[in-house]
Amino acid sequence: MKDQRREKQLQKLIQRLGLASDAPVNYRLLDLALTHPSVNKVANYEQLEFVGDAVVRLAASEVLLETYPDAPVGEFTAIRSVLVSDRVLADFAEMYGLERYLLVSGGAAADHGGKRSRLADAFEAVLGALYLSTHTMTLIRCWLDSVLKDKAIEVRQDPALQNYKDALQEWTQGQYKLLPEYRVQETGKGGHYTERFTAEVWLQNECLGRGTGHSKKAAEQAAAKQAFLTIGQPKEN
Amino acid sequence: MKDQRREKQLQKLIQRLGLASDAPVNYRLLDLALTHPSVNKVANYEQLEFVGDAVVRLAASEVLLETYPDAPVGEFTAIRSVLVSDRVLADFAEMYGLERYLLVSGGAAADHGGKRSRLADAFEAVLGALYLSTHTMTLIRCWLDSVLKDKAIEVRQDPALQNYKDALQEWTQGQYKLLPEYRVQETGKGGHYTERFTAEVWLQNECLGRGTGHSKKAAEQAAAKQAFLTIGQPKEN
Repeated sequence: MKDQRREKQLQKLIQRLGLASDAPVNYRLLDLALTHPSVNKVANYEQLEFVGDAVVRLAASEVLLETYPDAPVGEFTAIRSVLVSDRVLADFAEMYGLERYLLVSGGAAADHGGKRSRLADAFEAVLGALYLSTHTMTLIRCWLDSVLKDKAIEVRQDPALQNYKDALQEWTQGQYKLLPEYRVQETGKGGHYTERFTAEVWLQNECLGRGTGHSKKAAEQAAAKQAFLTIGQPKEN
Repeated sequence: MKDQRREKQLQKLIQRLGLASDAPVNYRLLDLALTHPSVNKVANYEQLEFVGDAVVRLAASEVLLETYPDAPVGEFTAIRSVLVSDRVLADFAEMYGLERYLLVSGGAAADHGGKRSRLADAFEAVLGALYLSTHTMTLIRCWLDSVLKDKAIEVRQDPALQNYKDALQEWTQGQYKLLPEYRVQETGKGGHYTERFTAEVWLQNECLGRGTGHSKKAAEQAAAKQAFLTIGQPKEN
């Protein structure tokens, strides 16, 4: 560990996660997990993020299976893709105030557009560091499970919170190694009662869903939602 | 467990994996992991495959990090995508003779084209069952690590064994949520000294690589290889 001040700071984060102060955390790895590549080109969070990406997928898989033992696998896949998305991981990072522990160079910190992906990366790296501290999920599941579970419930209950395009893409990629294709048309003028755009989402020669919206993006999301709800069924074999 | 004969059969598989006969394996889950959806629409390997998909990613991440601590993360990502590909997982499944343990309906078994993905799915499901038996990697890493390590060495050493298109796609997806686009032209007649096709691979407005081959597919792989070797460098931040 570089210095005592940094170690004290990281101990505060560990407490914040709800872990005991004597938890077997590898603080050297945790320090690395919270070091942005702009600070050190070599010793930074990239390798831990690579491990953490797999860790959060595994944690999310277990939580989903335990929470919804009877849900169709298509739905698991779609919800997991939301849970491990940059958007959601950055939200988790903010919940735990990760930003204050993350060492970033001034230049990189000024890139506000990159903040979400920085936070998501660092969050994954922290999971990687905690996993590698014991080579088990012990330091992770005790606090992350409830966070993932709450988010999974939210995602299932409030479709507006979902990014259906991402979820659909993950599904078509996983199943068919194909990307869905969107075809958008301006079909109305857009007023109080009519939507301006109509979108269709296609996979090869099949139209999976159709939707309308006041913007191209909204119409695409609506089409993706319809497709996602249709495909979120057990696979036919 | 349905019957004693099946349990005995599965114990043989466990021995084949190199695990002790009294290893704390959940045989009910292992039975499920080796039950194709064609045999049972509900109680089959699909949920375990969902967990196993994350398990094999995590195992591969750890092995790569331990074997090549100084490799750039871009290379990790690319090699991991090969290690967790259907092709490689089906090879592993064949190595352990998984097919003889997999319950499949006659109709589905006759689908020879689907064999690779069936085997890959079942292999992931077995990993899911072993993981969930103890909620740790204990029953997995002791035999899978060396298999993954050997394959990683092979992938790094013999580029011809790599599926560069898959690797490149995983990378562009992960980094930019975009698929690479291939543009192929017939540029020669194809003889002893000339290749018939030339392919370029593009990401948005940038040409990442170029290659030639005796078939469209070979030219695309060559282009993907060039692109992959270029992008397999540490990210600039």
